[in-house]
Order: sequence, then C-alpha cells, then structure tokens
Amino acid sequence: MNTINDLDTLKLALRDFAAARDWKPFHTPKNLAMAMIVEAAELVEHFQWATPEESLALAPKKRAEVADEIADVLIYLTELADVLGIDPIAAARAKIVKNAAKYPPPL
Amino acid sequence: MNTINDLDTLKLALRDFAAARDWKPFHTPKNLAMAMIVEAAELVEHFQWATPEESLALAPKKRAEVADEIADVLIYLTELADVLGIDPIAAARAKIVKNAAKYPPPL
Amino acid sequence: MNTINDLDTLKLALRDFAAARDWKPFHTPKNLAMAMIVEAAELVEHFQWATPEESLALAPKKRAEVADEIADVLIYLTELADVLGIDPIAAARAKIVKNAAKYPPPL
Amino acid sequence: MNTINDLDTLKLALRDFAAARDWKPFHTPKNLAMAMIVEAAELVEHFQWATPEESLALAPKKRAEVADEIADVLIYLTELADVLGIDPIAAARAKIVKNAAKYPPPL
Repeated sequence: MNTINDLDTLKLALRDFAAARDWKPFHTPKNLAMAMIVEAAELVEHFQWATPEESLALAPKKRAEVADEIADVLIYLTELADVLGIDPIAAARAKIVKNAAKYPPPL
Repeated sequence: MNTINDLDTLKLALRDFAAARDWKPFHTPKNLAMAMIVEAAELVEHFQWATPEESLALAPKKRAEVADEIADVLIYLTELADVLGIDPIAAARAKIVKNAAKYPPPL
Repeated sequence: MNTINDLDTLKLALRDFAAARDWKPFHTPKNLAMAMIVEAAELVEHFQWATPEESLALAPKKRAEVADEIADVLIYLTELADVLGIDPIAAARAKIVKNAAKYPPPL
Repeated sequence: MNTINDLDTLKLALRDFAAARDWKPFHTPKNLAMAMIVEAAELVEHFQWATPEESLALAPKKRAEVADEIADVLIYLTELADVLGIDPIAAARAKIVKNAAKYPPPL
C-alpha cells in the first residue's frame, strides 16, 4: 500500500483495499451513505451524555476512540465521493464561498 | 482567504471563517458532532428512496446537491477533528492498518 | 381515516396512507430505516447549537417544529416495525427488562 | 413496574426507570436527541449492506436484534417527547393530516 498523506492517496488506498476484498459490488452510493452515517453516529455516541465542557477534555483512551471514529467517517465519505466522481476538497471550497455569501461576517 | 487545496488548508480556512463570525464558542465537540450527523443525514436523504442502481446514476442537479452535502460533512468533520487536535489523515491511515488486520484479503 | 389514538391505530392509518399512494414498493426496511434516521437528524438539528438549558426551554414555534419531527420519526419507526412484523411496544417492554438487569438501580 | 402496553405506560415506566438511577439530570432534550439518533443508526447498520430484498427477509437472530434497536429508538423518542411535554401520538395524528394535504392520493 502506498503512503496515505492526503485525501487523494487515501482514496487510492481505499480503492485497492475494497478491490482486494471484492467489496466493490457493495459500494453503491446508497450503501456507502448508510455506512457513513452509522460511523457518524458512533462519533456522536462519545458525546451524548457529556457536558459541552467535558466534550472538550477527553481522556486519552476516549480521544483515541474518537480519532478512530473520525477516521471511519472520513473513509466512507471518501469512498462515497469517489464512486460518484466528486472531489471533496473542491466541493468544500465551493461550499465555503457559498457560506461566506450566506453568512457575511459582522462589520 | 487562502487557497483550499487539502485538509490542512481547509482546516485553516474554517478557523478563520468561524473566528470572523464569533462562532468559536458554539464549536464544542458535542455541538460539532451533532452538526456533522445532521449533514450526514442530508446526504443520506438523497438516496433513501433510490434503488442501488439509481444511486449510482445521479442527474446533474442532484449530483451537485450531493457534492454540497459531502462538503458539509467534510467541513464539520474537519472542524471537529481540529478542536480535538486530531489529524484526520493520520487517523485514517492508522484505521486502514487496523482494518487490514481485521479483514485479511482472500488468498 | 379512522381515529389514531395509539400505535396500533397509527400503524393501520399509515398502511392505508401508503397503499392509497402506491408507496408500498418503496417501503422496504432498508429504505424506511434511512427515512427514519433522516427525520431523527431533523430532530437533532433543532438542538445542535443549543445549550442543554436552552434545549429544555423551547419557544412555542420551535416546540411545534420539534413535535412535527418527533411525529416523523415515530411514523417511519412504526412503518419499519410493521413491514418486519415487529410489535414496538412488546420490543420496548422486553428491552426495559434487559436494561433493568444491565443497569441495576443503586441500593 | 407497571405493565407497559402503550406509549403512555411506556412513558411512565421510563420515568420510574430513570428516576431510580438518578439519570434525570442527563435527560435534557439535547442529550436525548443524540441518544435517539445513535440508536437509529444502530438500526440502520443492520441494513447497510443488504439488498432491498434481503432487508425484508431477516434471519430470526437478526430480526430479534432489529426489534431491540426499534425498542431503543422508541424508548429515547418517548423520553424526549416526555421531557418536552409533547404527546407523540397527537403529533403523529396532526402530521398525517398535513401529509395528506401535501401528498394528495392519485384520483
């Protein structure tokens, strides 16, 4: 496996990973969107009973678990964007331009 | 705003964006995790009644809306990782190593 | 439409509603689970930037919107249980017995 | 614990259950909405890789797990409605009237 150091190399590594396991037929956008929200919820779960303050001061073990869930969301999001031929960074760039117009900063 | 061309520059642009609008106090991990799953669901919504095949063949307008939602998830995920000091690419890299051990490819 | 005054009459009303619109083919468990989580997220959205205290003291307009989203989750949950032949009240009763064993009350 | 045979008796049983464990302080609408969507995602997880057809034909073990997750969503949804003083059945009734106007049946 090549080095993963950005979203593009992550995308390529994930393609290889899925191909080696014959998972491609399962990777429809519908299924990947479902898998992605399941991981998003596992992330939410870490914070559900926490106060806002507690959510900022995670113990090391919990912080590592949270990092794992962030990874899972990013992985499925990258795979979803890939099967649809969408560039997530370009999409985020365009969205920030839209958001800047929608929410102008106070003077 | 500087050019956004990877997750690091996206992170920095988002910091500036939130700071300019005094949104930082709202950006606890608890709140960002909630915002992130809300966007994840808006992504899921595009596929809820679609057949797996239809989910692969999006009309241009729908594809653009999906790109927008992918951007939103990526934006909140990046902000969440940032307030927790987590590097999403490093986390994904570590997770893929774990997954490779958990799901060895068929011989 | 008959009067809806409990989960059983809700279930029957929803069957009629879907049948009259030829929606039955779309109501697979997979699709209904997706629709249900989309509505769950619309409920979460109302609380994402609120403090815990604010989340308890909703303005009348927001409270009405929250009631609407609670309805939507209940509707899809009822339809999902129905297509699977699951009785949600019996399932909840059984789950509470399990939870009582798992989380015994303090002495 | 009294018999649970509808949403009202479920609500009362859940009040007792939470009170006996001193969980009430955690049961803000914000937290309960998060807990509810986490359970919704555990339900979604059962269907994420299934074809629509497979999602309709669950093996007994999986069907029991799905019933458990339906129970969990219903439990948190009931608790959320309760802390907000919302009647879920009345809300669903009102929502169906709205939906009937929004989606008139074909002639």
